[in-house]
Amino acid sequence: MAVEQRREQLIAVALDLFGHRRPDDVSIDEIATAAGISRPLVYHYFPGKQSLYEAALRRAADELAALFDEPREGPLGERLSRVMRRFFDFVEEHGTGFSALMRGGPAAGSSRTCAVIDGVRQAAYEEVLHHLGVQSPSPRLELAVRSWISLTETTALLWLDGRRIPRAELERQLVHDFAALTAVSAAYDEEMAEVLRRLLADESDRGPFLDLITRLAVLTPQPQPQPS
Amino acid sequence: MAVEQRREQLIAVALDLFGHRRPDDVSIDEIATAAGISRPLVYHYFPGKQSLYEAALRRAADELAALFDEPREGPLGERLSRVMRRFFDFVEEHGTGFSALMRGGPAAGSSRTCAVIDGVRQAAYEEVLHHLGVQSPSPRLELAVRSWISLTETTALLWLDGRRIPRAELERQLVHDFAALTAVSAAYDEEMAEVLRRLLADESDRGPFLDLITRLAVLTPQPQPQPS
Repeated sequence: MAVEQRREQLIAVALDLFGHRRPDDVSIDEIATAAGISRPLVYHYFPGKQSLYEAALRRAADELAALFDEPREGPLGERLSRVMRRFFDFVEEHGTGFSALMRGGPAAGSSRTCAVIDGVRQAAYEEVLHHLGVQSPSPRLELAVRSWISLTETTALLWLDGRRIPRAELERQLVHDFAALTAVSAAYDEEMAEVLRRLLADESDRGPFLDLITRLAVLTPQPQPQPS
Repeated sequence: MAVEQRREQLIAVALDLFGHRRPDDVSIDEIATAAGISRPLVYHYFPGKQSLYEAALRRAADELAALFDEPREGPLGERLSRVMRRFFDFVEEHGTGFSALMRGGPAAGSSRTCAVIDGVRQAAYEEVLHHLGVQSPSPRLELAVRSWISLTETTALLWLDGRRIPRAELERQLVHDFAALTAVSAAYDEEMAEVLRRLLADESDRGPFLDLITRLAVLTPQPQPQPS
């Protein structure tokens, strides 16, 4: 095999192994066996487990960042729903590795690993802004979007820990959480209110945001006018 | 000074230095100078910077966990508001250290450090459940509370990065975010709806949750009845 092909094969094997077991528990011997080559040959392509781990991580990060790239067409709620479905596909496929990394795997503390993870967060952030049609976000919009991204990470990690809630429900919930975080900020800030209005304007009657509002209207007491 | 007193003094000095500069940039010499003792004497009490750092971290974690301990009296929204005020006091005091730790400081990847941070998250989680009067949370309630805790971390880190939004606004917003995340979950789950009803029932007319709902009612289109 050519050098590039062999490296690609090793990365694919590593991604699969790291996706199903904690990276700490995967040995170079296992990687060699799974790839059908000798241990020294693995070292010929990657100087050590850490460097193979980092290459696999960068590959996973590129995949993850690409999930947020979605055509700018149709209601935002539906676009986010599609992104969330792909995100949970990814989390399901790379579950153990994703979890170990985010919870402090072997390379979790290294500055290179942190930079890769921050790169994915930044790419996701920029994609969401793009979908909102915003180029220079206000600090409040930045906070709402970055908060939501951290919420998707937390939700995915909790889902992996026992899968006690169906993933389809969590995908829908995260789309709603986006609207909810925007709405909280919009209640006090005119620029955020404008973002929320645009977000709701292109919703169909059966879109996820209007569905949520309808359900909430039943739950929450209607505000009483204050005595003047 | 007695051994315990001297250790306490060194932890206090370290907390102050790590709170204002990145822990990586603080030397044992500086800690010795600030404490008014010799460098070898510092090593007599702590075998190295890492062990002093970890002792300071555990102290900060204890303080942080204690912030969530709040009398179970009065509306929940007001209790959470007081907790958020103390939380931002803490973040303000320990800003640089908090930020370096959460973003990957010198000991961020060590399993001991991760365990300390997870301990604080767990303590905060249990306190919030206690305030909600829940002993055996459903998976959805666990998700809502843990999501909110991760949101407070993200919000505090973004605030430290330039302080572009007044902290009082963020304290209020996080209390609202709690209600919003609960509400999203409550829209589809009866047990969560029950939690939300209890949460709203003891609110005064001017409490933070009803204030939010009033403001949102103005922003969001009223749901139209579906043609039958």
